Amino acid sequence: MNQNSVPELGSAAGPILEFERRILDQMPTIEHWFRQQWQEHTPPFYGSVDLRNAGFKLAPVDMNLFPGGFNNLSEDALPCAVQAAQVAIERSCPDARKLLLIPESHTRNVFYLQNVARLTQLLASPGLEVRVGSLSPELTKPTSISLPGGDSLTVEPIQRRGDRVGLDGFDPCIVLLNNDLSAGLPPVLHGLDPDQTLLPPLHAGWAVRRKSNHFHCYDEVAADFAALIGADPWTINPLFARCGKVDFREKHGEQCLAFNVESLLRQIGERYRERNIKEKPFVIVKADAGTYGMGIMTVRDPSEVVGLNRKQRNKMAVVKDGMEVTEVIIQEGVPTYETIGAAVAEPVVYMIDRYVVGGFYRVHRDRGIDENLNAPGMEFVPLAFTNPCNVPDTRAEPGASARNRFYVYGVIARLALLAAALELERTAPAPQADLAVLPPAARAGTMAVNP
Amino acid sequence: MNQNSVPELGSAAGPILEFERRILDQMPTIEHWFRQQWQEHTPPFYGSVDLRNAGFKLAPVDMNLFPGGFNNLSEDALPCAVQAAQVAIERSCPDARKLLLIPESHTRNVFYLQNVARLTQLLASPGLEVRVGSLSPELTKPTSISLPGGDSLTVEPIQRRGDRVGLDGFDPCIVLLNNDLSAGLPPVLHGLDPDQTLLPPLHAGWAVRRKSNHFHCYDEVAADFAALIGADPWTINPLFARCGKVDFREKHGEQCLAFNVESLLRQIGERYRERNIKEKPFVIVKADAGTYGMGIMTVRDPSEVVGLNRKQRNKMAVVKDGMEVTEVIIQEGVPTYETIGAAVAEPVVYMIDRYVVGGFYRVHRDRGIDENLNAPGMEFVPLAFTNPCNVPDTRAEPGASARNRFYVYGVIARLALLAAALELERTAPAPQADLAVLPPAARAGTMAVNP
Repeated sequence: MNQNSVPELGSAAGPILEFERRILDQMPTIEHWFRQQWQEHTPPFYGSVDLRNAGFKLAPVDMNLFPGGFNNLSEDALPCAVQAAQVAIERSCPDARKLLLIPESHTRNVFYLQNVARLTQLLASPGLEVRVGSLSPELTKPTSISLPGGDSLTVEPIQRRGDRVGLDGFDPCIVLLNNDLSAGLPPVLHGLDPDQTLLPPLHAGWAVRRKSNHFHCYDEVAADFAALIGADPWTINPLFARCGKVDFREKHGEQCLAFNVESLLRQIGERYRERNIKEKPFVIVKADAGTYGMGIMTVRDPSEVVGLNRKQRNKMAVVKDGMEVTEVIIQEGVPTYETIGAAVAEPVVYMIDRYVVGGFYRVHRDRGIDENLNAPGMEFVPLAFTNPCNVPDTRAEPGASARNRFYVYGVIARLALLAAALELERTAPAPQADLAVLPPAARAGTMAVNP
Repeated sequence: MNQNSVPELGSAAGPILEFERRILDQMPTIEHWFRQQWQEHTPPFYGSVDLRNAGFKLAPVDMNLFPGGFNNLSEDALPCAVQAAQVAIERSCPDARKLLLIPESHTRNVFYLQNVARLTQLLASPGLEVRVGSLSPELTKPTSISLPGGDSLTVEPIQRRGDRVGLDGFDPCIVLLNNDLSAGLPPVLHGLDPDQTLLPPLHAGWAVRRKSNHFHCYDEVAADFAALIGADPWTINPLFARCGKVDFREKHGEQCLAFNVESLLRQIGERYRERNIKEKPFVIVKADAGTYGMGIMTVRDPSEVVGLNRKQRNKMAVVKDGMEVTEVIIQEGVPTYETIGAAVAEPVVYMIDRYVVGGFYRVHRDRGIDENLNAPGMEFVPLAFTNPCNVPDTRAEPGASARNRFYVYGVIARLALLAAALELERTAPAPQADLAVLPPAARAGTMAVNP
């Protein structure tokens, strides 16, 4: 793919081009608004956002606070990412010299390890000593792992000393999680010295975090932003609902699922009719906590969630690290009309602090436009994000400029980032509370959910 | 020039490679030190630094606070520059919506106008409404100027309303000078509303600023930095002296010049002997205030500054905007051993806020290694600064990596930037003082000068 080329957008591209024009025309207003927002809300250290572009709708469908694909960013994206990391570090711990990076514990995935190596490089470039520590009890001594291209990565066992965490001979100022804590909140990270900055905070981990809380905050951000630029908020915001007590294996909660699927499909259908959109509505049913594209179903009719067979139930019941699914989010499906060659594509935007630092297309040859693409067989195509995503070409014709499409993607991704900032503020435990002793129900679901 | 190629360094390259290695090895220490410095000192909004690399010495020889060559930066440098501008704007005026850019008044230089156009683009990208206002009394109505490539630039007359400055229908929050105020401090900018941020401050303009103050501050920065990394401070710091009362036309002050030239040449000679450097010392005599490569002489013997002929005297007596030269700095000459093809080259590093955002080589085919290259006939070759200057390749052999050479240039340039921050702090007028009513002698020269 040529750096300047933009993936094909299907025939429904019309409305999105008007939307692109509206965003570009109001860029000073938009950037001023973001500056104000970031004065009031602290951005997460980093994040990645999955977007879907349906032509009639452009919306975030997932916000990851432990992004694992930095290795998929273009090399050209590095300098800006380093600069952004510098800002993030200055904000969190200006006196920092040492940073401990805690990756996922399934250390055999070479792509993920390349992500860790890239992150290490990114964080070392602003002048930090970066070392990698594992939460895995099986890792008992420093272990060097060879990577393709001759690089290697050394992972060391984490040590707790009093109220600080570190490695042998290494007492970091910043502890950066690239582990989403699906496996639970590790005791070694409880009650750390406040002078040792843990980023993102523990309650950003999937042991505590809920997608529904995120999208509830996103409702607010999307409404404010749509009002700011005079756009229809639905254009950038997928509807959603939540079922809090589901047990797929025991077939509990199917009624709640069917009810919400039916209700959402009806609401989507109304919006399609109002806007003359000739599509068949669908929803995505997925775990309210968790990631890695596991436990996800595309549903076009309420009957599909009742009487699931054993295979379907097993698929939905457990996600990463054996985490049981009991809470489910039902989200409006946004078809993706972007294709690269014959393959369906969705953009993933990477951010550090409040800056877009790059992105890529997740491409899947064997999936449909209404399916999750985060599945085995996916490929990654770097976005020409540094060509350059923060320098739109305001004179180009709508749709003609990759810069402009990517600038718009960066705006929508930053809306999701802002929602994550609100979410982390609002779900933060009281200073005295110890997250580890709270039952899941008390930790999440405390926020009202949209209809 | 290939993005990865590095200009040739002459045979004296040995010591500088050791120095490069020392800098790379101590990168975490160095970046931590810079972070601390920027917590204590506010960087100028922007700046550019001329460096000279003699192989045995790598030093800044000029620090420009109104950089005029943004058009010479590579297109690839734009995203990071935009990101840096965003930081600078958030620091100065987080609520900014409108920025007034005041360029030089000699608006017929197409290269300079391209710089203004590039700056306008850079500053608009973080979402500011940017308009260009001229101090020139001859410009009485908005004037559109065509630029090569089909761009155009509109320059409007500046208006003063009460204690604010703006354009017709345009009341900016930030006023950014790209005019070095060689022509004096314009009354229209006196005593502005403190809510209207003027950047850089008036005392950064050449009507007030003195190079000797800058290099006096640089002495301090270079000494601290050399101690930090265990290097010889002379390696990064040119010696200098100053004559405060020179009148070239009337042949006053020649004795002071000759004395200081002799003394500096002797000091340089001693250092060369101590370090076994087989070079003939030289000094550069130039106006203590001013820029644009005017009023500059290369001097190899004290006799050369006594009994100047009329042509030489006229050349030295007046610099840009008819500014009379009465104060002179005599600076250790640093030969440049970098060549591109057969032409002598010197790196120029551009910074916004505390970030290196790009740079280029100033190349001159008809000048020697001991001459000023900022002269008619110069050419510009973009540095591969985004490939990437903040991501050194710490495993490369010394001298083999463009990244590493440019990282080191970025470090030295940032030392000069830090010196500029100190300089602006220390030369700031008392809050009540009005710069315009102070005689030049009271405005500058108040700082002690090194021997």
